[in-house]
Amino acid sequence: MSHKSHRGHRRKRMAGFIRRRTKPGASPGTIVADPESPQPVIRVIAYGPDSVEERQIHDVGKLAAYLAKWPVTWVNIDGLGSAEVVQKVAQLFKLHRLAIEDVVNVHQRAKVEEYSDHLFIVARMVRLSQRLSSEQISIFLGSNFVLTFQEREGDSLEPVRIRIREKRGRIRGVGPDYLAYAILDAVIDSYFPVLEEYGERLDQMDEQLALHPTRDIVTQIHATRSDLLFLRRAVWPHREALASLTRDQHTLIDRETRIYLRDCYDHTIQIFDLLETDRELCADMRDLYLSEISNRMNEVMKVLTLIATIFIPLGFIASVYGMNFDTSASPWNMPELHWEYGYPYSLALMALVAASFLFYFWRRGWLKR
Amino acid sequence: MSHKSHRGHRRKRMAGFIRRRTKPGASPGTIVADPESPQPVIRVIAYGPDSVEERQIHDVGKLAAYLAKWPVTWVNIDGLGSAEVVQKVAQLFKLHRLAIEDVVNVHQRAKVEEYSDHLFIVARMVRLSQRLSSEQISIFLGSNFVLTFQEREGDSLEPVRIRIREKRGRIRGVGPDYLAYAILDAVIDSYFPVLEEYGERLDQMDEQLALHPTRDIVTQIHATRSDLLFLRRAVWPHREALASLTRDQHTLIDRETRIYLRDCYDHTIQIFDLLETDRELCADMRDLYLSEISNRMNEVMKVLTLIATIFIPLGFIASVYGMNFDTSASPWNMPELHWEYGYPYSLALMALVAASFLFYFWRRGWLKR
Amino acid sequence: MSHKSHRGHRRKRMAGFIRRRTKPGASPGTIVADPESPQPVIRVIAYGPDSVEERQIHDVGKLAAYLAKWPVTWVNIDGLGSAEVVQKVAQLFKLHRLAIEDVVNVHQRAKVEEYSDHLFIVARMVRLSQRLSSEQISIFLGSNFVLTFQEREGDSLEPVRIRIREKRGRIRGVGPDYLAYAILDAVIDSYFPVLEEYGERLDQMDEQLALHPTRDIVTQIHATRSDLLFLRRAVWPHREALASLTRDQHTLIDRETRIYLRDCYDHTIQIFDLLETDRELCADMRDLYLSEISNRMNEVMKVLTLIATIFIPLGFIASVYGMNFDTSASPWNMPELHWEYGYPYSLALMALVAASFLFYFWRRGWLKR
Amino acid sequence: MSHKSHRGHRRKRMAGFIRRRTKPGASPGTIVADPESPQPVIRVIAYGPDSVEERQIHDVGKLAAYLAKWPVTWVNIDGLGSAEVVQKVAQLFKLHRLAIEDVVNVHQRAKVEEYSDHLFIVARMVRLSQRLSSEQISIFLGSNFVLTFQEREGDSLEPVRIRIREKRGRIRGVGPDYLAYAILDAVIDSYFPVLEEYGERLDQMDEQLALHPTRDIVTQIHATRSDLLFLRRAVWPHREALASLTRDQHTLIDRETRIYLRDCYDHTIQIFDLLETDRELCADMRDLYLSEISNRMNEVMKVLTLIATIFIPLGFIASVYGMNFDTSASPWNMPELHWEYGYPYSLALMALVAASFLFYFWRRGWLKR
Amino acid sequence: MSHKSHRGHRRKRMAGFIRRRTKPGASPGTIVADPESPQPVIRVIAYGPDSVEERQIHDVGKLAAYLAKWPVTWVNIDGLGSAEVVQKVAQLFKLHRLAIEDVVNVHQRAKVEEYSDHLFIVARMVRLSQRLSSEQISIFLGSNFVLTFQEREGDSLEPVRIRIREKRGRIRGVGPDYLAYAILDAVIDSYFPVLEEYGERLDQMDEQLALHPTRDIVTQIHATRSDLLFLRRAVWPHREALASLTRDQHTLIDRETRIYLRDCYDHTIQIFDLLETDRELCADMRDLYLSEISNRMNEVMKVLTLIATIFIPLGFIASVYGMNFDTSASPWNMPELHWEYGYPYSLALMALVAASFLFYFWRRGWLKR
Repeated sequence: MSHKSHRGHRRKRMAGFIRRRTKPGASPGTIVADPESPQPVIRVIAYGPDSVEERQIHDVGKLAAYLAKWPVTWVNIDGLGSAEVVQKVAQLFKLHRLAIEDVVNVHQRAKVEEYSDHLFIVARMVRLSQRLSSEQISIFLGSNFVLTFQEREGDSLEPVRIRIREKRGRIRGVGPDYLAYAILDAVIDSYFPVLEEYGERLDQMDEQLALHPTRDIVTQIHATRSDLLFLRRAVWPHREALASLTRDQHTLIDRETRIYLRDCYDHTIQIFDLLETDRELCADMRDLYLSEISNRMNEVMKVLTLIATIFIPLGFIASVYGMNFDTSASPWNMPELHWEYGYPYSLALMALVAASFLFYFWRRGWLKR
Repeated sequence: MSHKSHRGHRRKRMAGFIRRRTKPGASPGTIVADPESPQPVIRVIAYGPDSVEERQIHDVGKLAAYLAKWPVTWVNIDGLGSAEVVQKVAQLFKLHRLAIEDVVNVHQRAKVEEYSDHLFIVARMVRLSQRLSSEQISIFLGSNFVLTFQEREGDSLEPVRIRIREKRGRIRGVGPDYLAYAILDAVIDSYFPVLEEYGERLDQMDEQLALHPTRDIVTQIHATRSDLLFLRRAVWPHREALASLTRDQHTLIDRETRIYLRDCYDHTIQIFDLLETDRELCADMRDLYLSEISNRMNEVMKVLTLIATIFIPLGFIASVYGMNFDTSASPWNMPELHWEYGYPYSLALMALVAASFLFYFWRRGWLKR
Repeated sequence: MSHKSHRGHRRKRMAGFIRRRTKPGASPGTIVADPESPQPVIRVIAYGPDSVEERQIHDVGKLAAYLAKWPVTWVNIDGLGSAEVVQKVAQLFKLHRLAIEDVVNVHQRAKVEEYSDHLFIVARMVRLSQRLSSEQISIFLGSNFVLTFQEREGDSLEPVRIRIREKRGRIRGVGPDYLAYAILDAVIDSYFPVLEEYGERLDQMDEQLALHPTRDIVTQIHATRSDLLFLRRAVWPHREALASLTRDQHTLIDRETRIYLRDCYDHTIQIFDLLETDRELCADMRDLYLSEISNRMNEVMKVLTLIATIFIPLGFIASVYGMNFDTSASPWNMPELHWEYGYPYSLALMALVAASFLFYFWRRGWLKR
Repeated sequence: MSHKSHRGHRRKRMAGFIRRRTKPGASPGTIVADPESPQPVIRVIAYGPDSVEERQIHDVGKLAAYLAKWPVTWVNIDGLGSAEVVQKVAQLFKLHRLAIEDVVNVHQRAKVEEYSDHLFIVARMVRLSQRLSSEQISIFLGSNFVLTFQEREGDSLEPVRIRIREKRGRIRGVGPDYLAYAILDAVIDSYFPVLEEYGERLDQMDEQLALHPTRDIVTQIHATRSDLLFLRRAVWPHREALASLTRDQHTLIDRETRIYLRDCYDHTIQIFDLLETDRELCADMRDLYLSEISNRMNEVMKVLTLIATIFIPLGFIASVYGMNFDTSASPWNMPELHWEYGYPYSLALMALVAASFLFYFWRRGWLKR
Repeated sequence: MSHKSHRGHRRKRMAGFIRRRTKPGASPGTIVADPESPQPVIRVIAYGPDSVEERQIHDVGKLAAYLAKWPVTWVNIDGLGSAEVVQKVAQLFKLHRLAIEDVVNVHQRAKVEEYSDHLFIVARMVRLSQRLSSEQISIFLGSNFVLTFQEREGDSLEPVRIRIREKRGRIRGVGPDYLAYAILDAVIDSYFPVLEEYGERLDQMDEQLALHPTRDIVTQIHATRSDLLFLRRAVWPHREALASLTRDQHTLIDRETRIYLRDCYDHTIQIFDLLETDRELCADMRDLYLSEISNRMNEVMKVLTLIATIFIPLGFIASVYGMNFDTSASPWNMPELHWEYGYPYSLALMALVAASFLFYFWRRGWLKR
């Protein structure tokens, strides 16, 4: 099973990371909706310090009214299956065509790009259910809005919505930059439970390795390493993106919010550290397993050698006295067979040979396990 | 076959990357046409916002007219087999002799060099048909022209030409810097299908490794790793070249175009990331294969040990009772042979020995597969 | 046992490093006391050049009086089990909510954060008793106070307290920045005895490896490597934090104190160097062990081969003369059996065969150990 | 032979790279001529745009006349066997004593050092004839001269001399900085044929590895890796030196010449890239060879196991019926011997056992090669 | 022996590198003389351009007179066994307490620290006699003095003293900064003979590896790698320290002296390069040895397989005809025994079987060595 999930992961890798443009060399900014992507669902949460309005809308045109009325409007679009809707939203918010292209081609690395009147942030959420999967979230931050595009419904942003609805913390009192931070923080936080799950897997593997290392465990280590590699590639670019948000003096981001983003940046580093450590632990486990196999082979060989080197010579001696030379033809022909103590002598010879070998093995330390 | 392609790759490496100058120490700027290179074919696409003219020409002198008349003139030369043609073109466009030398010695790393009135960009396209090959494209960007040299006909720039002809996107409305970007973008995009192909190969190998790892697979992994190494070496310098184009304030490149080049830069990083990940996956697969072999060896050894350690002692016992000591010579000589239950006893002894060994193996966990 | 401690270490890793927030995406600055954490114990040491007062207090409100009266007040809180106490302290000292969150979530990397009127420093102490464990210490440095939070009672700061009480060195005469340095220095110094312990373990393993490498040693090397990895991850961020304290011109830190911090920074580098060297030595030992195993396998195989290749053919010869062909049926049937010197001849044949093999093995150098 | 050349290489390494000063701690600038070094041969090529004079001289004093008369004077000294000559030349050209020391101790890394009125450049040529060797060339660039010291006669600079004599390219028309560039370029170019040779060796090894990997190949790979390591160490410092020449605004180097030096810098990077790739290919080959050996061992073991596990039990059965129990003593003693079909039955039993084992092996996939 | 020296090395590592402070957390600047350290011996060399005075003194107070009278005074103290002497010297020269602490705790990395009126430099000498050892030298450079502390008598600075006494080179004519350089240069030069020794060891091992690789060699390679690791750790920090001396505009260091220090910096890089190369060669040798062992194992296995697979079946055939079936009971029971050519037939059968196996092995290429 573990290997299956691994193969699944590989296929997902192909589907999820390689840029699937219409054709190589096509005009940049061409928007081609992925037919397999679900139809967009548009949800608006508009809020100010005193009130909040949350609604699912179907007509993009209605968004303008929210933008005009509320201090902060968060438009979230789940599903990229309609090029028309994306186009309309892009026109309404005056988004750059290259940014829009990156929204639809959901295989971008995390990044921050500054356009004249908005900031474009790409981030990547991960989820681990059966197999590891990732989802791109594209965030546009304007002076009074945050616009997010997700590949499909279901996300890790629900706590942010609850904080807005229930007016927890500072979120309702401050601008859209803080909302963008809250979303990014929730995205980064989605890595922690996944890492904890992998940490537990490593623990289990480590324990299994100590008790009864089976062949299956190498495949598991291999699959885990691949997944960690995948996670590292997903998380690494966030570091640079968050560093840029913290460092560069983007006009849309408040000084106070930058302190929060620095905190988020710290978490990214922490995740990266954990991933690296886990990958090194994986490598160490594999090495341990290999030396375990060598050890076992060695033991098996020692038993074989012990038995074979003792009994093959003995068998040879027995065979000699099983030869049919005609003892009556001459006194040179196997006179031992007629000795009174011939048989006991032969047994004694065999015992002596066996004892010599055992002594030799004992001297070389092969009898100790 | 896979190994053959690998060897082919190596030979191509020698042919394609090592600088083949006339003699070491020759005067720089010496242009020596490679006799194996095809004769140059010159194609001109000249365009402005309203019209476009496309033609194949034979006389270099005719180019001046295009340059004088059109806002943007794209001269593309396929084949470097004629030193004379290259020389003439260089004179017409006032190209630096070192740049021209680099055009003809098609083994350059991707780079950007600024000359007084033009920018010289070297890039490298890849193609995967039967075996992996690469082709150098040299791009000169002037104030009203783009001049490209390619090693041979056939390229991945057709979509760019179609966009010019059919006036798709911004291309017809803007200057030659955007055309240079479009060409670079098409070159970088040519890596994606190749990567997808290698990704699929890795998937296949991974699956094969899980089901029935054969000896052939190591050779395949080895060849794939070599190819990925080759690709990495080809793609890596583009990163620096594109960073230079994006960062440095080249006067020939528009502010808006720089945003597009940044997008192209992102793709290069993405490709590099994928290559590194694939190379690590290759290494992991090889390690998995090796531990698989160790495992198998271990199993084979265990079976051998099991059978040998059981039957060699049994054979010895049987041999003992096949000895021909003269039982009539004395009562000490193999009296067992005349016992009533001698034979059953001996069989029982053998069964006991076999059972002891089996018990020992079971205790040590060697009977589990 | 050694492996058990290793597994213990892994579990601790999970408990100690992964950020355990209430829920991912919760409002930042939410303080949730860990129910397993002990109740806070508050100790105050307030001092000036001439006098010192040390007391354990229960009411946070009393701290204000100390701050007003003394040049330097060091408030140390052991145990984070009460959200209320932490909250009150935070209000009194006007600490940033993000900093307070980091205090309670004791899985931070070492870092320095500057807030408007205080500096927030996170460091990590290590202890090695039975198993390796680490503890976060959070240090707030204000203009006239140092506030430290620790996970539990017992620390390596006692020497600092003694220096204050007994007025040793400069500590009583200078400001809280020097106290913060003294605490950091004591934290960093806590790594040295741990490193010395691991150094001794490496020495023991190295000696054991030379005398009688057992299978157990690989597990020990593996566990040691994991622990060193853990230590490296704990110590590494201190480097950056201390570099920031030394380099950046924080207003709260005196020029003279910065010289001391540079010394502390040097120690961090030294620790990191030692860790890296020890990790490399571990890797080298593992390689040495593996080649040792290969060597032993080789020897075992040589003995098996020697005995088997000599005696199997001899056994075959003996078996031939044990065949029961009817010598009376024809003169072709084993006439050797009736030769006068049949038996001596056969023994001589066997001796010849054995000698030939021995000669062959001697020639190939297999008889040398 | 290949290994011999390797050992030769190691010895040369000792002779060629370790600094052989008179005694450690001696006064810097002490010039001690290596007694094994050949006596110096001084050749002058002095030229201007219109004429050139080339002569071998014996009296250092005559050089002053050339310097006074010609725009550019190239003094080349082959052989460092005379401390006196070196001293005189140093006085004439006012060379710094540290530079002179570096000229004589021919084990320097490539570097550039700026002195008040001259530039001192150290480079390293390589040659591959039988075995790999390197030679230091020390270049002094002044306002109207280039002074080069070489370890012995014979170099790769002949093409430069021909260009001067035959007035090819720009060389005669420009200053000594261009001559210094031409020399450096020729030195760097000397690496390409060596690399091509190693590339071909790698190809051959790769092919041999695919067809019939012998034990010898590992030694070859090992030797090649060592040589590539040696080459890398020789070429790497040129990168920094050329970067300094290109980047830093040395007054002695013309702006135009700097463009040429940039080209030379590109070649260094290219060589370094090739070396790294070749080293990685070497490592991959070694890994491939090792897995090849494992594979073969596995096959050998499978054959042994197959034969042994089938015939050892059969042999045991046959031995059982070769026992000499007295069948007349009781009906329990081997009654099978007197059965009518005893022999066919026993043969059938053996066939059954053999078939069972074969079936078992077939099931486990061991019969496939 | 080689392994013993290795273990010695490890123990020395513990004694020599880990910081042995009185207690962790003690007041910085506490000077605790190591009771095992020898009593200090103070030697003064005071000199100017015209004269030099050299004396061993016992009273620290006498140093003031030298400082007042001579342009340059070099005070060298061998042995750190007296806290009192160190304290007095520190007072006289007004040394910073942290610097003095570093002098006494002789486990510092090489570094440069600037104090208000003196420069503090730590360097590390190495010596190889029987086993590798290192010694810290602490250098204080003031405007008219150089003060050096060494762990014990005997150093590599004698050539510097001779240069002062005999007025060789520039040393007598210039300031104390040049003397500090001369000392540093002598320290760095002390690495070269050690490296040469290791280079020779590598050569010997390489040769031995080619001729008759024994098990001992792995231990030697392992020990050499450890020593090189140790050397690398000792030499690496000098690089940074010398770079700081060359780069930073320390007022105490003359512009001309900086040129000399740059030369010294170059040597450090050269040493580091050699160490890295030697470490890589060690790793390559170990890999070569491992593949050598695999090869040998393979050969041993092939011989065993060859002999066993041929003779075990033959032995089986012979055993069959040694069975005692009653030929008189029925015509089915071993009629071959009574055939006229039964015996020759059976021998022919055996020959056929043996030939078949040999043919099979020849086909698979196992008969070639």
